[in-house]
Amino acid sequence: MRPIEMIRKKRDGLELTREEIHFLVSAYTRNEIPDYQIAAWLMAVVLRGMSRAESAALTEAMLHSGEVLDLSPLPGRKVDKHSTGGVGDKTSLVIAPVVAAGGLLVPMISGRGLAHTGGTLDKLESIPGFNVDLSLADFLRVLSSCGCALAGQTAEIAPADKKLYALRDVTGTVDSPYLICASIMSKKLAEGIDALVLDVKTGSGAFMKKEEDAVYLAQLMVETGRRMGKRTVALVTDMDQPLGRAVGNALEVAESVEVLRGSGPQDLRQLCVELSGWMLYLGQRTGSVADGRRLAEELISDGRGLKKFREIIELQGGDASVLDDLRRLPQSQHKMDLISRCDGRVAEIACDQVGIASLVLGGGREKKEDSIDPAVGIVLHKKTADAVAAGEALCTVYYNSDARLAEACALLEQAYRVTNAAGRTPRPLVRQVIEGDSQAGPAAPIESAAGTE
Amino acid sequence: MRPIEMIRKKRDGLELTREEIHFLVSAYTRNEIPDYQIAAWLMAVVLRGMSRAESAALTEAMLHSGEVLDLSPLPGRKVDKHSTGGVGDKTSLVIAPVVAAGGLLVPMISGRGLAHTGGTLDKLESIPGFNVDLSLADFLRVLSSCGCALAGQTAEIAPADKKLYALRDVTGTVDSPYLICASIMSKKLAEGIDALVLDVKTGSGAFMKKEEDAVYLAQLMVETGRRMGKRTVALVTDMDQPLGRAVGNALEVAESVEVLRGSGPQDLRQLCVELSGWMLYLGQRTGSVADGRRLAEELISDGRGLKKFREIIELQGGDASVLDDLRRLPQSQHKMDLISRCDGRVAEIACDQVGIASLVLGGGREKKEDSIDPAVGIVLHKKTADAVAAGEALCTVYYNSDARLAEACALLEQAYRVTNAAGRTPRPLVRQVIEGDSQAGPAAPIESAAGTE
Repeated sequence: MRPIEMIRKKRDGLELTREEIHFLVSAYTRNEIPDYQIAAWLMAVVLRGMSRAESAALTEAMLHSGEVLDLSPLPGRKVDKHSTGGVGDKTSLVIAPVVAAGGLLVPMISGRGLAHTGGTLDKLESIPGFNVDLSLADFLRVLSSCGCALAGQTAEIAPADKKLYALRDVTGTVDSPYLICASIMSKKLAEGIDALVLDVKTGSGAFMKKEEDAVYLAQLMVETGRRMGKRTVALVTDMDQPLGRAVGNALEVAESVEVLRGSGPQDLRQLCVELSGWMLYLGQRTGSVADGRRLAEELISDGRGLKKFREIIELQGGDASVLDDLRRLPQSQHKMDLISRCDGRVAEIACDQVGIASLVLGGGREKKEDSIDPAVGIVLHKKTADAVAAGEALCTVYYNSDARLAEACALLEQAYRVTNAAGRTPRPLVRQVIEGDSQAGPAAPIESAAGTE
Repeated sequence: MRPIEMIRKKRDGLELTREEIHFLVSAYTRNEIPDYQIAAWLMAVVLRGMSRAESAALTEAMLHSGEVLDLSPLPGRKVDKHSTGGVGDKTSLVIAPVVAAGGLLVPMISGRGLAHTGGTLDKLESIPGFNVDLSLADFLRVLSSCGCALAGQTAEIAPADKKLYALRDVTGTVDSPYLICASIMSKKLAEGIDALVLDVKTGSGAFMKKEEDAVYLAQLMVETGRRMGKRTVALVTDMDQPLGRAVGNALEVAESVEVLRGSGPQDLRQLCVELSGWMLYLGQRTGSVADGRRLAEELISDGRGLKKFREIIELQGGDASVLDDLRRLPQSQHKMDLISRCDGRVAEIACDQVGIASLVLGGGREKKEDSIDPAVGIVLHKKTADAVAAGEALCTVYYNSDARLAEACALLEQAYRVTNAAGRTPRPLVRQVIEGDSQAGPAAPIESAAGTE
């Protein structure tokens, strides 16, 4: 097989065979195809697209480029959740312990912050001592001890994805649903799970700004999961404003703990219950999604979720006393309120700008090698459609550097739009549910998904 | 400037600025941008296209990546011709001496055979001793001595093209009119010419199979030439069957000499006169194309063209006695006729297959490092629309290896289609004339272009 033939085929809009895609991925992983040929092929994929069969073959080839965990010796069903990334999206920190407390195994491999979005690993590392760099052996030990492990991608998992992602990053070939799907699904399927819940974000703070793009990606991933024999569902959820109120690593950990204590912002609680409900249902712990939601609420209200989080923190070397006193989390030296100058309603919050403001404060990386300040961030007091009076605080900025404060405040000033108009009602949190598994039954009514049952 | 921004712009179908294109080309030529980024950009160009301004900027940037010859110290106007490549296309060997004999300077930099097409340099090298690897100094010496020099691209001319072409060849990014235009025009404009005649081939033996693609490329090149202040015309000409009767290096030299002697096949003679006529006109040697054609015919019939060819051969180290006795050109050991099995007419000759047959016999390279057998090739006795009787020879194969004969004959058997149907008249040799220079006057009537005036 010659790579040039496959580049030409894709350039001309033709479909590659499964064998051709496997050849490209495995030969590239073994350094037998030069970067420039794969770069040309990736650009052709971005502009020509892929068939569902090609997309599945790409995922499969990347999945099998490394180790696929065999979790069958561990009793119980294994489920995971993956989010395409957003601002203030800390659901993993709630969901993983809740679902593990519900009796399922959650082998969760997460990522770092990317562009304006936060990353679960960065958030967890704001807990003093918490170690996310687990070896495969340690990962399995933690998982079997408490039913959940939270760690970064190891070298053994999907090495093709590591190599391809690095190339995509520098060749303008990140934005393709087919390549995004293969990257996400190959890593998730390598975890040896039985079922997967996908949280596909859409809106100004998401990578997929348009809902139709998010739905397309969601369908692609659900179909890919199904082809690989996994129960998979995707929730297309709102990222037109940050999720919850906290943006920034330690601030988000604190908010997650509040949800596990039974309080916290309503939207965050709702989405955590919704995603947990689906995980508990797809993991066959409950007979319906509604029962899954009810169980998730129970696991929160009776404190079992919080107890599980304590176990995880302890097993991964962290200081669990932060759960008893959130002030033991890293605290910024300064804070400042951003004040509204007028009466009105919050018409809009430019969500990606809030993410960038947090990054500018030191909560994210502008370059790969930057270190993160876990204490900084933003807490929103006003969200979309909230009434606000002149002089009231829109948000509070937590910071350690005056120099960075100015830029962050400028971004936040621009991010909030306060008007006198009646303002639109925020759109539903869960926009669509994409199910690929016919056994899963009809989707729950979307608007009232978590609230009424 | 960051290459990734320019890759993304082109990926998204946006227009790059002149500065951005100059940056990409010059930084790549200096090895400051990695191959994989340019490969992704090239694929985006292939699939998204370019505006006329971008195309001109690319040509200009490639042109200025190396030396631009200053021929102003040499008296007289400088003109050249370039063909996009075909099978049996040996017009350069006739045109260059004829136009130089007409008093213009012809600094002709040519190429090697590519894919199924022949190359002027390979043909010239079948003349014993002929040296096409001239230094820039030798090139100028030959040019000023006799008004014409025939050589390969030197390292000084358009180095960006050399580097880009090598990358395009292995990344499936050859087939783009914008990239083809920039590659051709940057090299030709670096020759320091005043005017350029382009022969854009179309049909089964050309790179542009479809006439509309050939016309598009022709328009692009003519406009690019005009933007650079050169009088430029493009003739879109037939390559649905080989030009003339001979295909193969020494065989084609012999046929060119026959044309210079005033005989040779009618189609080849016609196209040589047509192209020479345009060169003589654009070089302001004559006041009209019609006068240019008449002068070209004169220069052939009175032997001045042949005499000029002798001078060129001698100045470039070749054995000019071949002109007196064509049997002094390399001769194959064997020849064999391919016989028609039925009566009828030649409905079609798959032109690219004839080119590949010649390549298989040893007349071209399958791999870069292959050496060429100058003696082998094919002489066609029957061309499209010719009547043929069962038992008559369709063509003669000149060969040195029995092993290669079989494959070549199989290709030629398939290439000739003989039917009983009345058969279509071959399409006109010159399909369209694309003029960019308003001073050049209206195009000559196409069908009767060379025949009637």
